[in-house]
Amino acid sequence: MTATIEPGAHPAALTAQGSLLRTLPGRAYVDPAFFAAEQDGIFDQMWICAVRSDDLSGPGRFKTVQISRESILLTRNRKGEVRGYFNVCRHRGARLCLEESGEVKRAFQCPYHAWTYDLDGKLIAAPNLTSMPDIDRVEYGLHHVAVREWLGYVWVCLAPQPPSFEATVQQDVIDRLGDLASIDAYDIEHLQPGRRIHYDVQANWKLIIENFMECYHCATIHPELTEVLPEFANGYAAQYFVGHGAEFGEEIEGFTVDGSAGLGKIPGIQEEQDRRYYAMTVRPQVFINLVPDHVIFHRLFPMAEDRTIVECDWLYLPDVVASGKDVSSSVELFDRVNRQDFDACERCQPSMSSSQYAEGGVLVPTEHHIRIFHDWVLDRVGDLG
Amino acid sequence: MTATIEPGAHPAALTAQGSLLRTLPGRAYVDPAFFAAEQDGIFDQMWICAVRSDDLSGPGRFKTVQISRESILLTRNRKGEVRGYFNVCRHRGARLCLEESGEVKRAFQCPYHAWTYDLDGKLIAAPNLTSMPDIDRVEYGLHHVAVREWLGYVWVCLAPQPPSFEATVQQDVIDRLGDLASIDAYDIEHLQPGRRIHYDVQANWKLIIENFMECYHCATIHPELTEVLPEFANGYAAQYFVGHGAEFGEEIEGFTVDGSAGLGKIPGIQEEQDRRYYAMTVRPQVFINLVPDHVIFHRLFPMAEDRTIVECDWLYLPDVVASGKDVSSSVELFDRVNRQDFDACERCQPSMSSSQYAEGGVLVPTEHHIRIFHDWVLDRVGDLG
Amino acid sequence: MTATIEPGAHPAALTAQGSLLRTLPGRAYVDPAFFAAEQDGIFDQMWICAVRSDDLSGPGRFKTVQISRESILLTRNRKGEVRGYFNVCRHRGARLCLEESGEVKRAFQCPYHAWTYDLDGKLIAAPNLTSMPDIDRVEYGLHHVAVREWLGYVWVCLAPQPPSFEATVQQDVIDRLGDLASIDAYDIEHLQPGRRIHYDVQANWKLIIENFMECYHCATIHPELTEVLPEFANGYAAQYFVGHGAEFGEEIEGFTVDGSAGLGKIPGIQEEQDRRYYAMTVRPQVFINLVPDHVIFHRLFPMAEDRTIVECDWLYLPDVVASGKDVSSSVELFDRVNRQDFDACERCQPSMSSSQYAEGGVLVPTEHHIRIFHDWVLDRVGDLG
Repeated sequence: MTATIEPGAHPAALTAQGSLLRTLPGRAYVDPAFFAAEQDGIFDQMWICAVRSDDLSGPGRFKTVQISRESILLTRNRKGEVRGYFNVCRHRGARLCLEESGEVKRAFQCPYHAWTYDLDGKLIAAPNLTSMPDIDRVEYGLHHVAVREWLGYVWVCLAPQPPSFEATVQQDVIDRLGDLASIDAYDIEHLQPGRRIHYDVQANWKLIIENFMECYHCATIHPELTEVLPEFANGYAAQYFVGHGAEFGEEIEGFTVDGSAGLGKIPGIQEEQDRRYYAMTVRPQVFINLVPDHVIFHRLFPMAEDRTIVECDWLYLPDVVASGKDVSSSVELFDRVNRQDFDACERCQPSMSSSQYAEGGVLVPTEHHIRIFHDWVLDRVGDLG
Repeated sequence: MTATIEPGAHPAALTAQGSLLRTLPGRAYVDPAFFAAEQDGIFDQMWICAVRSDDLSGPGRFKTVQISRESILLTRNRKGEVRGYFNVCRHRGARLCLEESGEVKRAFQCPYHAWTYDLDGKLIAAPNLTSMPDIDRVEYGLHHVAVREWLGYVWVCLAPQPPSFEATVQQDVIDRLGDLASIDAYDIEHLQPGRRIHYDVQANWKLIIENFMECYHCATIHPELTEVLPEFANGYAAQYFVGHGAEFGEEIEGFTVDGSAGLGKIPGIQEEQDRRYYAMTVRPQVFINLVPDHVIFHRLFPMAEDRTIVECDWLYLPDVVASGKDVSSSVELFDRVNRQDFDACERCQPSMSSSQYAEGGVLVPTEHHIRIFHDWVLDRVGDLG
Repeated sequence: MTATIEPGAHPAALTAQGSLLRTLPGRAYVDPAFFAAEQDGIFDQMWICAVRSDDLSGPGRFKTVQISRESILLTRNRKGEVRGYFNVCRHRGARLCLEESGEVKRAFQCPYHAWTYDLDGKLIAAPNLTSMPDIDRVEYGLHHVAVREWLGYVWVCLAPQPPSFEATVQQDVIDRLGDLASIDAYDIEHLQPGRRIHYDVQANWKLIIENFMECYHCATIHPELTEVLPEFANGYAAQYFVGHGAEFGEEIEGFTVDGSAGLGKIPGIQEEQDRRYYAMTVRPQVFINLVPDHVIFHRLFPMAEDRTIVECDWLYLPDVVASGKDVSSSVELFDRVNRQDFDACERCQPSMSSSQYAEGGVLVPTEHHIRIFHDWVLDRVGDLG
């Protein structure tokens, strides 16, 4: 998404108006109708990163998660394949699973009238079902959602005809890193969460994305991060050019809150990836941060026009997690960055409804690439917005 | 309402589509505009069972109750007749009575400007009233609502021209029991509340009605009830045929949580009413449950599209209440049933807004009579819905 | 506003229909669209009394206050002049100041990207600002709001072209007192707050204004006040005729809860102002109450159609405040009056949505002048309502 912009090069298309480009209008951040249009045109249509694959450790293990306006039930079938369903009984609509996670033996039974579905979603039992031979057990099985595993996460798409995973999710990574090999090097699939933090942010999801896409704010609000990555102090985001990773400062030993040494380096990474931080946005709701010894993986779940839940995983090599090594100095660095960023977003949210922000604010040159994100949103929302 | 359907007989009109009929669409349970149309077309038009007559024990005793969108003030005049008023001062609109119940001596005085109304609603005093001779004291009396006492309850109708009480409320009882004599036998008017429980249910009122109308769920969620009434395990509701009452199990001595003996039999009931449970729905908001030694009487008060308050009375013979006999084993049976049912309704409510429930769910043959209720709702709501 | 009506004289224009005139319809008090129209047509257009001047005691001292839908930042520049700004950073909209009050040295710096504005609102610094020479520092300064100091308060107007302060705010005072000299006599600018009480009232702002404008309720709800001002018991408001102040009762020594002596008389007041209480409404949101030894000054801040925050100051001579004299018996009198009034308003609010109040209530002759306020509201709201 940010591939073709170089710092200082001010592409003509973007800078015809000079140093400043317009942001989205204020209503894009506060109008429930605009948010509904985003749910329709973006979150109901695209691949959404839902849960960590390991959270579904075997057949019958399940997780429920809210995607857009829907409760989605994720599980594995007897073959160990991930399956996703709308968490709605086909009979009278009762929510099948209320728990956030759990395990069933071989089927989901609705606790209202005991309609029962196997792990592949097929209706296999119901009171008097044999006396209703015209009920097709597949047609009245659970409604499927498309699922896909990648990078150790389960991605879900609510649309009946999902877009190409390669042309959307993976292309966003390629646009940033230049190729998929660069991310494969971190073997994210086999890392394990050393820590997971849940943030409940009182701000529109796009404020969080925009914040992550630019580093013009880094010098002001991220003292620890700019200490570790000195080039961030000049305002250029790590996402600004293809393949670029921000280099650690000379005295810095690891990606930690105090610059002290990190943990074991991930074996597969290239020499040019060492001592560097790479960040990318995978639209519409994932941030991936790569450093030599761990990966920080954000999933955003927009709940309302002014509220977004963010789940952030710190992923380490399995032996780091197994040995119980202290990961707190690396966790603390990005936890602070997260809180600094989300505070800033929450500070913007109330102004989005001001008459003075009706036409939006402005983007300086180091933020101009955010305009590409804005245009993409407007395009997806269309006349619905 | 359920009179003409027999189990297994699948009336052609209902089953042309096979075993499954459609329910109402999801929006009927979640759209505030649909709920407002129900208030306009149903709750503002029909007789609503408001309070127990005994709660207004004499002249000047009052109760306030929310019916549809209105606060209604119920009292008795000096002759002991029930009177109902909109709880709105005719001067500047202050709520006359804030308390849920209380007693006035001979008049209601507005605490804002002291406009004063007698127990028949007439304006009898106000500061400077004598110097305003053009104010007609009846025209500027409280706005009346129609009232009627039956079965020991005060029924209220907000409409200026109430429908026939006989053709609506009483006809629903006749459709279920075959005649009024069958309910008169229980002498409900002279029973007394041994217990009253207030439930605040986070579900649309129609989910509660539909749940009460069918017994397809009984085997799954009502272990105690199916123990007492074994025929409920097969899924046919007590409301399914005219005049039918579900028979107690052979070992069952009373309608109690453990099947132990109940209290004294109500003297007037017929022999064929003994050891049987009768249930009926009186549209739009009353359930009546008859057993030999007590009556369980539910009043539903829809507060919002997703919230309904249910008041449930357990009524016993006066000497049972006066003697302080332990009624807990009979109360506990239906209190458990209520909680099991309301939990199920609350489990359905969030799915009503799912895209997968936009066209509703399905009714199996033992639920087909619910379609008659649905058609009635749609008819009352009309184009407003 | 109430100037031309005399008690008992019932102007023909108002009383053609007899003793009773109609109030506004119920929806004027409960419909969010009507409230939004009032924000557009009244609170965004007129002079609004925001804060006490002394709360901005010098350059860089600031207060933030919500006016209509906006957060407004008030401060003084280096010359000591009051300045008002929309509290919205011109860059990406972050709220500049979150605190209700505070002090900056010489500039406001946005905590997100460090855009920095001097006390006159000019953009004076931002990261990389020198490399963006096309950014005009005045054009990208803070958006101004009009400000004016009078009576020791800072008045604000959000409109780009504010109305004449003299023809609105001051004319309301003249209409009530006959001239400005009468209010100047109290030297309100140099009084000091001995007490400030914040009330959070669950009622529409117009109910509070209407209540303040009439005294028909005084005998019913204000026993302490009518003890001090016996003529209030007959229902005529102090605002009823031009220049009239209600006289203290014979035994009354001061404007206190028990009629005991007050504090030192304000030196400038006229002899005819002694032992009298004057009240006035300055549209749309100020009440001023004048007594010989203090002034009670209310500012109303409508937050929603059913919620209004009221800030009430009790202002005394500087030496009274400096000496720490006990002002509680005078504070308590009007604090009780406030609570009695706001309770009454909160009691009216829920009835405003009743079907029986759809066309409003009625005004008796001693309330007829409220109709002038109603007509003014309808005129300002226009077709927006």
